[in-house]
Amino acid sequence: MILVACLNPALDITHEVAAVDWAGINRPAAVHDRPGGKGLNVARTLHALGADVVVTGLVGGTTGTGVAVALSECGVRTALTSVYGPTRRTFTVVDERGNVASFYEPGPVVGTAEFAGFLDDYREELADADAVVLSGSLPPGLPDSTYATLIEEARGIPVVLDAHGEALRLGAAAGPAIVKPNLAELEALAARPLGVGDDLTAAAASGLRDTGAGAVVVTLGRDGLLAVTEGGCWRARPPAAVTGNATGAGDAVAAALAHGLVLHRPWPERLRHAVALGAATATAPVAGEFRACDYTRAVAG
Amino acid sequence: MILVACLNPALDITHEVAAVDWAGINRPAAVHDRPGGKGLNVARTLHALGADVVVTGLVGGTTGTGVAVALSECGVRTALTSVYGPTRRTFTVVDERGNVASFYEPGPVVGTAEFAGFLDDYREELADADAVVLSGSLPPGLPDSTYATLIEEARGIPVVLDAHGEALRLGAAAGPAIVKPNLAELEALAARPLGVGDDLTAAAASGLRDTGAGAVVVTLGRDGLLAVTEGGCWRARPPAAVTGNATGAGDAVAAALAHGLVLHRPWPERLRHAVALGAATATAPVAGEFRACDYTRAVAG
Repeated sequence: MILVACLNPALDITHEVAAVDWAGINRPAAVHDRPGGKGLNVARTLHALGADVVVTGLVGGTTGTGVAVALSECGVRTALTSVYGPTRRTFTVVDERGNVASFYEPGPVVGTAEFAGFLDDYREELADADAVVLSGSLPPGLPDSTYATLIEEARGIPVVLDAHGEALRLGAAAGPAIVKPNLAELEALAARPLGVGDDLTAAAASGLRDTGAGAVVVTLGRDGLLAVTEGGCWRARPPAAVTGNATGAGDAVAAALAHGLVLHRPWPERLRHAVALGAATATAPVAGEFRACDYTRAVAG
Repeated sequence: MILVACLNPALDITHEVAAVDWAGINRPAAVHDRPGGKGLNVARTLHALGADVVVTGLVGGTTGTGVAVALSECGVRTALTSVYGPTRRTFTVVDERGNVASFYEPGPVVGTAEFAGFLDDYREELADADAVVLSGSLPPGLPDSTYATLIEEARGIPVVLDAHGEALRLGAAAGPAIVKPNLAELEALAARPLGVGDDLTAAAASGLRDTGAGAVVVTLGRDGLLAVTEGGCWRARPPAAVTGNATGAGDAVAAALAHGLVLHRPWPERLRHAVALGAATATAPVAGEFRACDYTRAVAG
């Protein structure tokens, strides 16, 4: 089983409006509610791949209930911990010309006792876990060391970490199997500009690996992936030009890396699948979703 | 007890954003969730006036649960009927310069069996009701005759009806104690332009009364009210210039008319309170709320 921890999930609300009136009343032609946040995108992707997934995390209020209900309607197993504060919403308005405006609420403030309750639930699920995915932002109230704590608790179960800033730095030092920054996140950590195919980029990834991670996989958008592993440095490129939803693509890469880990795929194959799933997901309109035919075509290259 | 029927309630979500980026990601500085829809504004206003109120209506999904929870947190008693479809949300973005953009979701499609379930609950609450308020839009699936049906069910308990279009026309013919259109709604019904203080306006109100309503009270925005009753025609003007939230003001007038009805206030006093409460509510930033001092000052004139 792959355990996905989602500490700051969201309910993603999308309104499709023909032509937005930014100074008046709009009546959306279509309304979509979906479980959101990077961790839940990873979980839905793994579930679509046929992997056995369990989602742990923190949910609160009626929005949290909505997220839990929507996940189980997708067929994703959950072991969620209740918190007092309401789960955040993201609200996105899309018009017919492809203009997009988003409004991201802050997550609930999580207290120490609430996090202790989550840790108990997390430890219980770890008993059956073959791999763990830690992905997305931390809600207010939790320290930057939270992912490091969860990696230490995993005690040898391989962890894929997708975080940024201090949470990434401290998490990488706690010994996850794979960390998956994007180029901007790696740049922020290296505190210098980095380019695709740059020696400095490979050096920064290698430096991050040296702090404690088993491997570093950097997502490079339409340029694919750079991986620094115990076996050396790899580049994986998508089979064709990729356009679309970069957020969803990054989450798909994290899912594919965890999947490849539990299937014991060798690195070249693991990366080929990761880049193919990223490309197939970028093409789909919704983060966490992809068309199986796009994926199999991309894997075949 | 005053029974307020709210067939298409809403969860009103407001995001306060310093300066909105209509082509990017915004992180609101404040987020507000409130029970909304005209009926719930009326109910909250009556509750604030100290009246004994019960809210009936249709709620569905986790949004419906959120509305029910928020109402009971306000101290408003509820006897709500569950429906399958989710209660609608309204989403409003307000920036620091007072720009406002709103997005109104459609209500749930309500089935015949669901409405029959509501009618049972409504009949049960009618047993203790001294007055009924019917206010707001009808959700998809319910016919225009729905308010007329609810007025017939009330069998002599006085009803205040705030509706528009066919639902208003059919409702007025079913014999409510008071109908409360605004000028635009009366214009639409009369199918001719009407002006404040116009003889045509009084004639249109009188014509609407002749179809079956006990009285017609037309809200005229900052110009106050025009009432056509069994005792003749009245005008009530606010004590000072009014600016602000017209929607909230109309709902406050409906609440004050129902309150005056159960207190057996004579028409001049009833209208004086209605216009004062409308003015106090227009001044408040949130529909369904007012400052008691604004109200008492306005009543005193």
